[in-house]
Amino acid sequence: MAKKVLVIGGVAAGMSAASQAKRRSPDTEVVVLESGLDVSYGACGMPYNISDPKREMQDLVVITAGQFREKRGLDVRLEHRAGEIDRSNKTVKGMSPDGNFEIGYDKLVIATGARAVVPDLPGIDLDNVYTFHTLEDGRRLKQALKKFDKPARVLLAGAGYVGLELADALASLGHHVTMIKRKPKLLSWMDQALEDRLLKELEKNSVDLVTGAGLDSIEKSGDLLLVKAGPNNFSADLAVVAVGIRPNSEIASAAGLDTGRFGEIMVDEELKTNDPDIYAAGDCADAFHVVTGKRAWIPLALRANRAGKIAGANTVGAGLKAPPVAGTQVFKLFSLEVAKSGLSLDQARAGNFEPVSIVIHASNRGHAFPGAGKMSVELVADKRSGRLLGGQIVAEEGAAHRIDTIAAALAAKMSAREFGGLDLAYAPPFGPTWDPLLVAATQLIKKLEA
Amino acid sequence: MAKKVLVIGGVAAGMSAASQAKRRSPDTEVVVLESGLDVSYGACGMPYNISDPKREMQDLVVITAGQFREKRGLDVRLEHRAGEIDRSNKTVKGMSPDGNFEIGYDKLVIATGARAVVPDLPGIDLDNVYTFHTLEDGRRLKQALKKFDKPARVLLAGAGYVGLELADALASLGHHVTMIKRKPKLLSWMDQALEDRLLKELEKNSVDLVTGAGLDSIEKSGDLLLVKAGPNNFSADLAVVAVGIRPNSEIASAAGLDTGRFGEIMVDEELKTNDPDIYAAGDCADAFHVVTGKRAWIPLALRANRAGKIAGANTVGAGLKAPPVAGTQVFKLFSLEVAKSGLSLDQARAGNFEPVSIVIHASNRGHAFPGAGKMSVELVADKRSGRLLGGQIVAEEGAAHRIDTIAAALAAKMSAREFGGLDLAYAPPFGPTWDPLLVAATQLIKKLEA
Repeated sequence: MAKKVLVIGGVAAGMSAASQAKRRSPDTEVVVLESGLDVSYGACGMPYNISDPKREMQDLVVITAGQFREKRGLDVRLEHRAGEIDRSNKTVKGMSPDGNFEIGYDKLVIATGARAVVPDLPGIDLDNVYTFHTLEDGRRLKQALKKFDKPARVLLAGAGYVGLELADALASLGHHVTMIKRKPKLLSWMDQALEDRLLKELEKNSVDLVTGAGLDSIEKSGDLLLVKAGPNNFSADLAVVAVGIRPNSEIASAAGLDTGRFGEIMVDEELKTNDPDIYAAGDCADAFHVVTGKRAWIPLALRANRAGKIAGANTVGAGLKAPPVAGTQVFKLFSLEVAKSGLSLDQARAGNFEPVSIVIHASNRGHAFPGAGKMSVELVADKRSGRLLGGQIVAEEGAAHRIDTIAAALAAKMSAREFGGLDLAYAPPFGPTWDPLLVAATQLIKKLEA
Repeated sequence: MAKKVLVIGGVAAGMSAASQAKRRSPDTEVVVLESGLDVSYGACGMPYNISDPKREMQDLVVITAGQFREKRGLDVRLEHRAGEIDRSNKTVKGMSPDGNFEIGYDKLVIATGARAVVPDLPGIDLDNVYTFHTLEDGRRLKQALKKFDKPARVLLAGAGYVGLELADALASLGHHVTMIKRKPKLLSWMDQALEDRLLKELEKNSVDLVTGAGLDSIEKSGDLLLVKAGPNNFSADLAVVAVGIRPNSEIASAAGLDTGRFGEIMVDEELKTNDPDIYAAGDCADAFHVVTGKRAWIPLALRANRAGKIAGANTVGAGLKAPPVAGTQVFKLFSLEVAKSGLSLDQARAGNFEPVSIVIHASNRGHAFPGAGKMSVELVADKRSGRLLGGQIVAEEGAAHRIDTIAAALAAKMSAREFGGLDLAYAPPFGPTWDPLLVAATQLIKKLEA
């Protein structure tokens, strides 16, 4: 049993790890080093918080550092930035407002998360140019928006799912949003027929979208920002750069721990790095994909929390294995629910599969039930094995939880035929007798067996 | 390949069977004998249709007999009541408005459905006493309600899920509903903590409920009905008797086909009876349960439609196997979604299991997201094997589709631990980081491993 567990990073995975280690082994000393001022916050709530002037960004803090200290017996040290891991002496060195520190460990958990990519471009450091990843980013942006008593013009660089959530939030507040994206597609993984629904939704809500040229430079001109993106010029009151995130893993690679393509720390099923006394969990680390069985870097909240919990338990000898990840996710875009799980057609092609896919559009209500909308479903399966590989859903309602049925099927390695035989629930207010998932499966089976 | 396929019954399973046989084998003659005037209607929509004065009950007919004839090439004969199956001569005899008929078959599908149980009690035949199972029942009740320009007093005997849906519909129209039920519980399979939410919901919506004594007699007194139930007396403008359903299988048992405990026709995985030329599908027939592997009679719409499709395909040589059933279902009770899949604790005890169960109440929104309600989840697992056996959910929203994740897990024979490791979707508008299903799984695993 470890006498001292040290955790670097106090957000989702880090606090989960620390709490779990202490709960399972109350005699173990558990120390958390957090570089910032906030622990345990739900960053996924930031876009939704932005859209609600009645709420404070601080509401997203689930448990405060003080509560972790008092109620869970954790030694949480804020504004303690870890700078170096000395593996041979099993210590971590760093900086705090009180100066340099050095602290020993028996077992170490690296839960340093990820950070917003900030491209090195002219003007990126100007006032009124924001990133959107940490709670502090959220506070700054929310504060900035308060200055505008009339609609602001917001230039939003990047249109991944966080960018889309933020566009929704800002437009819902009445601001005029222009999104720019270097790549032609909004979401690289999304089937075009489904993405078309997102494009229409942006249009309907007066969010402008200019694709094919990314952010090149920003200049100040009076109170305005002048933004250049390829041949395009935009003026804006403020700009938000949300062009992606990257693992905070420099401290790990500097210490000789193995990292992958994006810098994500490589861990085994027990979330151990190539140093048997060091675990890594959360957005800084990788995982095994439920469909491919291969390593994947999928920074999402549930996975991060779960990995933290498992890594923490394993520091005190639990020997738990992290379940594989499916990359199941959902977000809201105005009146749409957008969800995916598993592999897209392109991702499946890049893997060792011979994928086929179908898209269907079906009613999300029983026959003749009022208020029906269209649910769009894509399913992907492997022609050779018949196995279901992934799915995507866009609908006004019912996508957010239906995607979990696909996630369960992927975990079970179901064939498309098995998936199509599932005994799903039916009542007219919630769907047709043959659920859209089953309608899609029937089409998919036909295509697989053609 | 069968030259002539005969189908007895033209509702869900029957029309699915006939359509599928014809689609797969266009040269096969397909005849459907329907005793009533309606084919292919969605009876599950009836309670919801009742509550909407703007809609006609006829709207629930998905495809008319004429359309089946013209577009699908089916020989649909309405008001043709099959009376006898002569297995040695492979003919069916019956009555139609034109007199007796006799019709031959190579393959026969029995899809006679189920009927409302009408207890043999004094006054059961009075005007203003209604059953609620066929479309004709629905039409009569809807017509009767139109006579009331002020709230009617409705005595509703039986409080299964259809009774509850109907209570919702009638109360939503402003009528005053008193439900009576012989048994103390509303739903035999429902966990008490979850059922308590239903009881509160009935109370909140001014639906009276008197349990412990069932319908004994009905008398007429002027314009009113006097209803006796054990020691209790009620007066009402009209009464609805919804005390259960039974398979229409007399024609099958008279022909020497095997039937089960409730009279349901016993079929193998290919939906064949003990006569290799006779299939049975839908509410009149049984199925194999996904958890127990044993025969079960679970009359629900998706299962009936699917069984019809498979039986129809098999009459023309497809050789398909029906997937096992989980009894997954959902219904709306005022503002609640109520869902189940698999075995309840009692059902698991009655099977060969050593079940444990837990109930949790969790938020159905992310941390600090406004508008959160409580989702109540029960999960049941087998202590010996760790296998998940069933689940139930009650919530203002999100139960209807979450239950399908449980259905998928049951089909995959997942353990509670595997279920708890699922990579489910998360975004604050749709649920907390740890979905209520995962919170429940965590508790269940603790109890299993205690």
